[in-house]
Amino acid sequence: MRLKTMGLAMAMLLAPAVQADEGMWMPSQLPAIGKQLRAAGFQGNPADLADLTRAPLNAVVKVGGATGSFVSDEGLVLTNHHVAFGVIQYNSNAQRDLIQNGFVSHERSEELPANPDFRLRVTTGFDKITEQVLAAARGKTGRAYFDAVDAISKTLVAECEREPGMRCSVVNMFYGRDFYLVKQLELRDVRLVYAPPRAIGNYGDEVDNFVWPRHAGDFTLLRAYVGPDGKPADYAKDNVPYHPPAHLQLAREGVREGDFVMLAGYPGITYRHRTAAEFADQVQWRLPATVQVMQQLQHIIEDTGRDDRQAAIRYASQLQSLKNNIKRFQGELDGLKRSDAVAVRRSDEDAMMAWLAAQPQAGTLRPQIDQVNQLIASVNATRERDLLLTLMSSQTQLMRSAILLQRLAHERDRPDAQREAGYQMRDEDLIAGTLRQVQRRYDPLIEKRLLIALLTRYQKLPDAQRLQAFDTAFGRTPESLAQKLDQVYGATHLGDEAQRLAWLKAEPAALGQSNDALLSLAAQLLPALLRMEDERKAREGDLLRLRPAYMDALIAYREKQGRAVYPDANATLRVSYGKVTPLKARDGVQYEPLTTTAGIVEKNTGVAPFDAPRPLLDAIAKGDYEGYADAKSGAMPVDFLSNLDTTGGNSGSPVLNARGELVGLNFDSNWEAVSASWMFDPRYKRAIHVDMRYMRWLMDKVYPAPPLLKEMGVPAR
Amino acid sequence: MRLKTMGLAMAMLLAPAVQADEGMWMPSQLPAIGKQLRAAGFQGNPADLADLTRAPLNAVVKVGGATGSFVSDEGLVLTNHHVAFGVIQYNSNAQRDLIQNGFVSHERSEELPANPDFRLRVTTGFDKITEQVLAAARGKTGRAYFDAVDAISKTLVAECEREPGMRCSVVNMFYGRDFYLVKQLELRDVRLVYAPPRAIGNYGDEVDNFVWPRHAGDFTLLRAYVGPDGKPADYAKDNVPYHPPAHLQLAREGVREGDFVMLAGYPGITYRHRTAAEFADQVQWRLPATVQVMQQLQHIIEDTGRDDRQAAIRYASQLQSLKNNIKRFQGELDGLKRSDAVAVRRSDEDAMMAWLAAQPQAGTLRPQIDQVNQLIASVNATRERDLLLTLMSSQTQLMRSAILLQRLAHERDRPDAQREAGYQMRDEDLIAGTLRQVQRRYDPLIEKRLLIALLTRYQKLPDAQRLQAFDTAFGRTPESLAQKLDQVYGATHLGDEAQRLAWLKAEPAALGQSNDALLSLAAQLLPALLRMEDERKAREGDLLRLRPAYMDALIAYREKQGRAVYPDANATLRVSYGKVTPLKARDGVQYEPLTTTAGIVEKNTGVAPFDAPRPLLDAIAKGDYEGYADAKSGAMPVDFLSNLDTTGGNSGSPVLNARGELVGLNFDSNWEAVSASWMFDPRYKRAIHVDMRYMRWLMDKVYPAPPLLKEMGVPAR
Repeated sequence: MRLKTMGLAMAMLLAPAVQADEGMWMPSQLPAIGKQLRAAGFQGNPADLADLTRAPLNAVVKVGGATGSFVSDEGLVLTNHHVAFGVIQYNSNAQRDLIQNGFVSHERSEELPANPDFRLRVTTGFDKITEQVLAAARGKTGRAYFDAVDAISKTLVAECEREPGMRCSVVNMFYGRDFYLVKQLELRDVRLVYAPPRAIGNYGDEVDNFVWPRHAGDFTLLRAYVGPDGKPADYAKDNVPYHPPAHLQLAREGVREGDFVMLAGYPGITYRHRTAAEFADQVQWRLPATVQVMQQLQHIIEDTGRDDRQAAIRYASQLQSLKNNIKRFQGELDGLKRSDAVAVRRSDEDAMMAWLAAQPQAGTLRPQIDQVNQLIASVNATRERDLLLTLMSSQTQLMRSAILLQRLAHERDRPDAQREAGYQMRDEDLIAGTLRQVQRRYDPLIEKRLLIALLTRYQKLPDAQRLQAFDTAFGRTPESLAQKLDQVYGATHLGDEAQRLAWLKAEPAALGQSNDALLSLAAQLLPALLRMEDERKAREGDLLRLRPAYMDALIAYREKQGRAVYPDANATLRVSYGKVTPLKARDGVQYEPLTTTAGIVEKNTGVAPFDAPRPLLDAIAKGDYEGYADAKSGAMPVDFLSNLDTTGGNSGSPVLNARGELVGLNFDSNWEAVSASWMFDPRYKRAIHVDMRYMRWLMDKVYPAPPLLKEMGVPAR
Repeated sequence: MRLKTMGLAMAMLLAPAVQADEGMWMPSQLPAIGKQLRAAGFQGNPADLADLTRAPLNAVVKVGGATGSFVSDEGLVLTNHHVAFGVIQYNSNAQRDLIQNGFVSHERSEELPANPDFRLRVTTGFDKITEQVLAAARGKTGRAYFDAVDAISKTLVAECEREPGMRCSVVNMFYGRDFYLVKQLELRDVRLVYAPPRAIGNYGDEVDNFVWPRHAGDFTLLRAYVGPDGKPADYAKDNVPYHPPAHLQLAREGVREGDFVMLAGYPGITYRHRTAAEFADQVQWRLPATVQVMQQLQHIIEDTGRDDRQAAIRYASQLQSLKNNIKRFQGELDGLKRSDAVAVRRSDEDAMMAWLAAQPQAGTLRPQIDQVNQLIASVNATRERDLLLTLMSSQTQLMRSAILLQRLAHERDRPDAQREAGYQMRDEDLIAGTLRQVQRRYDPLIEKRLLIALLTRYQKLPDAQRLQAFDTAFGRTPESLAQKLDQVYGATHLGDEAQRLAWLKAEPAALGQSNDALLSLAAQLLPALLRMEDERKAREGDLLRLRPAYMDALIAYREKQGRAVYPDANATLRVSYGKVTPLKARDGVQYEPLTTTAGIVEKNTGVAPFDAPRPLLDAIAKGDYEGYADAKSGAMPVDFLSNLDTTGGNSGSPVLNARGELVGLNFDSNWEAVSASWMFDPRYKRAIHVDMRYMRWLMDKVYPAPPLLKEMGVPAR
């Protein structure tokens, strides 16, 4: 591994060009990096990309936690099958199984309303409000700083949302260095227009998830509607299609290896500008420790479930989730080790600090950066405890219910507006739901064994990490712990649904005085848990105040290196660019960047998830690809691979060519890219896209929808 | 699949060039195909390749069922680690584990004797004796033809072996069209000189078996010794190294994608010139039927073993063997379907017959070919029965022992020389061994269940396939079968080892009159089994007589197509040529033809079979590859891939470049090539070789042996 490590480190030092395709840029940054954008092959004007009110960015849509784009002037929206899956499911039943069979609307009246909570959002404003926010917070520290930012943000959002149809939010970039007010037009009447069958949209399912080569047609078309007055409205029969100010144009030609591509969307979260100490913590402690504890919990559930089928069924979902998390964390860990992320980030930060020492701003920034490092060290000082107590709440059912009930009672003592998010009146239905589903997910033996595993680890922590209330409640020995849990679980009625729901309705004071053993235990622990939360927010406030110094230093250092810095992803609109790129998967194995319909046939077993529908297989056998296939090879493309910088949230992002035309639809990453949330390693990071030629061919030859093709400006052939 | 099928069929019709690299040529054929050999890149004189007494072919050695080659003038022989594994194992013990640690001899006196039955053979003569053989057989048919060929062969072999140190055999080419007397010098004193540790020689073991990309250093060096008089001799301290008439020279330079390569060796068996009817039988019936029955047997062993750990252990080896066979047969079936072998062979044979109809020789050949087809049809008429009864013997322990004892008694009635091969006096030790190991491999319940499965299927066969003796013994109903087996297995003492061995020593007559229920049953069935065998030999005799007509037609037809025909493999010395070739594994996945040491590190887990030894990992980390690495990429090659035509038996074959220098050592094929024993599909058939640069680097930098490198003419750097 040493060798590869050296390779990357050296590549980073010697050839900054390999970094060129990394970046989730704010649109406003694009003019500044226009030169490198053009050098990469972009043929448009970078300044156009900075303007949210102009194409192409005003055609990009936020769809739930993911992305989509307008592809006609009558509100047609293209996104992934998996992003729109809830809409397809909502309209399916035993008589009309749209998941299995897909859906083709032949005229407007056939379009099917989405589930009522489904929303599309178009970002229309992105105003820098750093001064306003900091004016409110400056001079404060810790929790007060945190609360001040929170309060001014709420005020600004409330003002902004006075405009009907608008949803607003305050986001910060570079970890508190800059603040922006994001304004989004919210479209509430969305309808299903076209969806391929599951066996096309999700061909390969879990087996192919994170896998290249891929062969899914993961796309769906929706349509946004507005009231007859053109304003956002709830679903109504008389609503009319929304006319977006602009839409994307499907390319007439396809992509080849090496072609320039770019992508716009709403990537969720990355950690690339975290400090070297945080990288070390993530790789050396957090990921391995979390995997280790989760594996212990997994084994408890599996072992107990072997002798008790009923219990196994009740914990199937929790077990699946544990296994998914373990796999993902392990993948992230493997990737970060493969990229030698800790050493690379450390040497980069060391170089930055050495450079900073000779700069005029060192006197201001250096002390703040030192404080950031101290704060991170203080977070790490209790990381074992924090992990265990977080799992104690998240991995139990009755214990979680008891803490939830006590916490809610605590919040109810305040006016609703001042309650903690998640414990307000509007959240109580959700809480009731959580309390109800315990019934299908709880087994006393498993819960006690999980708690014994977690709290035995807790008991072994050094004094400085332990909390008095927990020591008092569970004692300091395995015997006292087991005895306490036996006693509490033997004398609680929270296992009874009616009891749980009754306590939800009870007066706060009654909960404090409850003689239910578990509620009483939760009451005993609550003050310590609240204190932990308060400490966490105080540290977050200080980090929000101080990290900007670290980012200032980093941005200045990168500027000296001739490189711009993009903020870590935070679910705001970003643009990345790169090219259609193969992947050297491992020694001797080269993944080509385009797949073809031949691969669908190769993978097809007739059994889900590789059960390509008969019409698709017939069309492939017929080979009527004219106008869609690659001119040179004659092969019909399905998906393609690029080195575009993406993360969760980029699902459904439009992929554009050098002329800004739509050539692909982003829908996944490769497994090796799991660690890209921390470090973009150009050797391994790839994004997976549906080739628009495949979508057009399906809509022309397999499940035809000529009016829709015409509407998108690419008529059937 | 249709599409790919058409692709291959069309490729075969339109571009015979893709066929150019197919062929396991007899050396004597090479001058005739000299033009295509030179066109492919061979730089030597094809006539030289035809001469078994000249280099390079006189440097090629038969090693057991595989191949090796002389690489120095002092008898150094290069072959695979897995071919020489028995020698390494024979010299290993707990104190000196050569399997685990490898072995480097620093001087002659340290070289370790091979197991006494280990032999090297050098083919020195290959004389056509068709006329002699046919003179003896001509005019005969059926069993008489078979026996006549057998008798004259035995006579010629005995004559030939009068020369001391020679082993001779009669082989036939083109299924009885041509006969050759093969004369081989047999070297009996062979010693171990150099072996890498298992974790290099067999890196990846079963996980990587049949897999590309591969990273094994599957080589070992032996040395042949002869008596002080220069003649073959048994091991003796005073023996001296054998001076071969020639040896191969290691190339100074390595290979690149597209380079010409050729290979010489002893491929075991192929079926490529079988008739279209035999292809159809293999794909449509034999492979699927065998897989199906074997899977039933597998499930019986697994199911019974679940409740009986002792039985599971006793059948572990049989179960493993069943599973291996199922996997291999299924792989062959998948491959033949992928290549659409039945249709391709059928259309080829139809075209041949159509062409033949207009030729003067049609009158002679056509009736004989018709008879071949009738014979094949008659074989197929009882194929279900033959498969089931073969499995009845091979998959049982006590039943097999009983039949073996009765059969041996039957043979013992004749003079030893006239007994059937396998039942002669020299075979009796082996038979005793078989009877002994029953003890560790027999469980009455499993054996009865296996027999019930097989014989229930047998009972359902149409009358024409069933044998009277079997119907009499087992009745016609499941009930009578179960009752009979219960009765027989309840009243046999063959489960007792001493009893079995006592019967081995008993007089033939005593066996016929035995009142052991199982021996008595075997005696009852034996005449029918002998009759089946006799019928089989009669058909084989007729096929040996008639198939040459089919081959004559095929050879003439190919000649008209401008193509030479090589005989199907039969463990005689063959040469194939081709080039270093990548493999398009599946849609979007390209396998490069060379692997590098980086892949060893990638695969390494520290746990067998991916537990690269520390000295290797250290040497890779150090990267001291000068003089060995690829000049362009700087990467250190490990293994490489070619399209050379190989099959089992080619293990250890030397791979030569255009100048006849040694560049690789063949050791495996890819999984997709399993079906190549029937059809060479140029899209998928690949052979896997150790790159000689890797061997030289290991012997220079990792486990150094400078004197050996010097002896091979490639001194350490």
